[in-house]
Amino acid sequence: MKNFLNISDFSNEECIKIISSAIDKKNNKRQSSDAQNKTLAMIFEKNSTRTRISFELAIKQLGGLSIMLDKDQLHLGKRETLADTAQTLSQYADIIMMRSNSHQTLENLAKYSGVPIINGLSDLSHPCQTLATLMTIIELKGSLEGVNISWFGPISNVAHSLIEAANNDLGFTLTLHCPQYYQDIYSQKLSDMNKKICFDNISLNELDFKKVEATDVMYTDTWFSMGDIEDSTKIEMLAKYSIDQNMMSIAKKDSIFLHCLPANRSQEVSAQVIDGEQSYVWQEAQNRLHVQKELLLHLLG
Amino acid sequence: MKNFLNISDFSNEECIKIISSAIDKKNNKRQSSDAQNKTLAMIFEKNSTRTRISFELAIKQLGGLSIMLDKDQLHLGKRETLADTAQTLSQYADIIMMRSNSHQTLENLAKYSGVPIINGLSDLSHPCQTLATLMTIIELKGSLEGVNISWFGPISNVAHSLIEAANNDLGFTLTLHCPQYYQDIYSQKLSDMNKKICFDNISLNELDFKKVEATDVMYTDTWFSMGDIEDSTKIEMLAKYSIDQNMMSIAKKDSIFLHCLPANRSQEVSAQVIDGEQSYVWQEAQNRLHVQKELLLHLLG
Amino acid sequence: MKNFLNISDFSNEECIKIISSAIDKKNNKRQSSDAQNKTLAMIFEKNSTRTRISFELAIKQLGGLSIMLDKDQLHLGKRETLADTAQTLSQYADIIMMRSNSHQTLENLAKYSGVPIINGLSDLSHPCQTLATLMTIIELKGSLEGVNISWFGPISNVAHSLIEAANNDLGFTLTLHCPQYYQDIYSQKLSDMNKKICFDNISLNELDFKKVEATDVMYTDTWFSMGDIEDSTKIEMLAKYSIDQNMMSIAKKDSIFLHCLPANRSQEVSAQVIDGEQSYVWQEAQNRLHVQKELLLHLLG
Repeated sequence: MKNFLNISDFSNEECIKIISSAIDKKNNKRQSSDAQNKTLAMIFEKNSTRTRISFELAIKQLGGLSIMLDKDQLHLGKRETLADTAQTLSQYADIIMMRSNSHQTLENLAKYSGVPIINGLSDLSHPCQTLATLMTIIELKGSLEGVNISWFGPISNVAHSLIEAANNDLGFTLTLHCPQYYQDIYSQKLSDMNKKICFDNISLNELDFKKVEATDVMYTDTWFSMGDIEDSTKIEMLAKYSIDQNMMSIAKKDSIFLHCLPANRSQEVSAQVIDGEQSYVWQEAQNRLHVQKELLLHLLG
Repeated sequence: MKNFLNISDFSNEECIKIISSAIDKKNNKRQSSDAQNKTLAMIFEKNSTRTRISFELAIKQLGGLSIMLDKDQLHLGKRETLADTAQTLSQYADIIMMRSNSHQTLENLAKYSGVPIINGLSDLSHPCQTLATLMTIIELKGSLEGVNISWFGPISNVAHSLIEAANNDLGFTLTLHCPQYYQDIYSQKLSDMNKKICFDNISLNELDFKKVEATDVMYTDTWFSMGDIEDSTKIEMLAKYSIDQNMMSIAKKDSIFLHCLPANRSQEVSAQVIDGEQSYVWQEAQNRLHVQKELLLHLLG
Repeated sequence: MKNFLNISDFSNEECIKIISSAIDKKNNKRQSSDAQNKTLAMIFEKNSTRTRISFELAIKQLGGLSIMLDKDQLHLGKRETLADTAQTLSQYADIIMMRSNSHQTLENLAKYSGVPIINGLSDLSHPCQTLATLMTIIELKGSLEGVNISWFGPISNVAHSLIEAANNDLGFTLTLHCPQYYQDIYSQKLSDMNKKICFDNISLNELDFKKVEATDVMYTDTWFSMGDIEDSTKIEMLAKYSIDQNMMSIAKKDSIFLHCLPANRSQEVSAQVIDGEQSYVWQEAQNRLHVQKELLLHLLG
């Protein structure tokens, strides 16, 4: 039984198969009965717009059922152990998607569950977002071969999954433009979580304009996650990593802008860029739905 | 692309077409596939019983899917601009229904959304309720032609939509029996919201028993909305506008009583009236479901 | 119109018919259209994992629709009387399931509702759990005839429904092993709620090892319900009623362990027992789904 907690859980071939299938069916096969009889349980420890809607629609458009479980509705980890809740959910659901404050919770859920677990965002990674991002790039650039992606700002869970994808040898190169301060935070986090990452196919540096010049895909994320305090020192440190029209003009002429959303137009990206012609953030958001349908089918076997 | 934020968004003919269709199908066609593949997103900034259930059932009975979004589940206007949430929802949903504390929010949503917006109650209006009310009157009286409707008490969002319907020349006459104090509040509200209302087909007065005598439909609403403080001065001022058995006996013998619910039996209506033989409030509540199905189909095109 | 507030609402034959039908269809007929067009409204005053998921899946797998109503989403008993909410729900739903803090609320709901009411757990009883328990015993033991069930600890709502089932003459015998303190609480509760229970087919005693020796089904429940304060005096009083490996070894060799869940492995049951080979708690949890499908069909008529 397979889980999808990280991009690294899938081979290169599995990623490409899922994405290709999503592109194929996107416009032709909105509703099907490919997951008839199947039930997806969704557990949210944090709020969600895109993940929640796209997964709920995904399973329903495949002819299956969804059960939405807020953490407040469950006895999760309070009156019932996570192991028991996992066992219980496995009695009813065929697959479980969870958004958790802790990647460890997801790993425990996977350990005790009798059905596949999907990571719908954790403090470590966001592999579903990466699938949608890569799908969008393939739609726009034809393939991932030789594509240069530049990431700007803190190495978030979204960036972490992109790093894993780069390590999967999917054909693209990745440059992380990130202040040393945030590089150190990321190293510490990996060490705390006992995770190792290979950086062979990846450039990790502070702002490197030479790399920006060669960039096909400009990608960033909100500087402050849900619950983080917005700190003026950090905003100052990150200011030059903001993707504004000037930064876009340094990159390749046909470069595109992506963002996992929600976005803060006064920080990591300017309104001109995200609302401009090089931005494909809405296509990327919609692709969550399409790629997650194929993900569900792949895991349901 | 059409929205339904106010009764005035629809022509006379559109209103009648939707209502007639609802009456036709009410008993014959409970479940269909008329909105197969279509997704309704529902956003609630305030609690709801009737609106929530009737819309969820409406889209499901039409073969479509619903996504229910509590404001707490969304990043709405906090971590994400309303424009971005509107754009995101438009990637997944074919139509959006929102109950909002602010009509302005609905207008902004309509501005940025790529799909039709339905007003599921705002501080200004409640057009879905009006469609159900008019449907109920047509069922009971045969048509709206020459029907005299009397409204009692503050000019609420429900009353506002009824005023718009009267202005649509649907054939009925409307008398608003309302203390001067509340007439002034309504005028001020319209002026604050930069809205103009024509009162050509409408009598606006304090309690006018001559008008009550000619009334076919006695209609009122709770005096205090969700969150309002119940104030003894106001209760005293409104006391004589309460629809009790005595007030009903002044109206036409075959007059009916309607109410959008929830009701307070110690204030705007007596138990004897709302639970009595002239009351059709449950039929009116059920008609929300039927008329909203036709509304959805009309807007989905 | 029938309700299912208590096991005693059903005859012996109705219980057996529902359970037999559930066993028959369990593996053969997961999804059907037996409740096509039917809507189940679910109201929760308390959290729920199993009840919520199993009922939602039950109606959906029968081809029907579910509407989930948190008490916070309703105006329940605050801005609207329970009678009015019951009447409103009856306009839209074909059947209502409610988990309530008060059995009286369920009885009032049943009084005013135009559609059948199912008790999804009250302070008095948990009849759906009893159906699933009896189904599990029949699956494992072939029938209820001559089966000896031993209940350990406080006489909870789960135990109360089992007592009612024993009174229904379903063929099994029931022994309640319960401290005098908790026996008195139960008597007081029955008297406060004006309920009478016949104890003809039931042994009510403190711990009786002779009875344990003859036991086929060892059954217990959490000592402290949601919201109860865990009190060391009570824990001490109940300690010897805990079902650990030693207690299991006193019962019949082929005895089974059941639990309605959630479980506390440091109190009413040891990890060794609930996670051991004699435990069928997951099968029992899954049977909630199967037996509730037949319950819904029975009440929908």
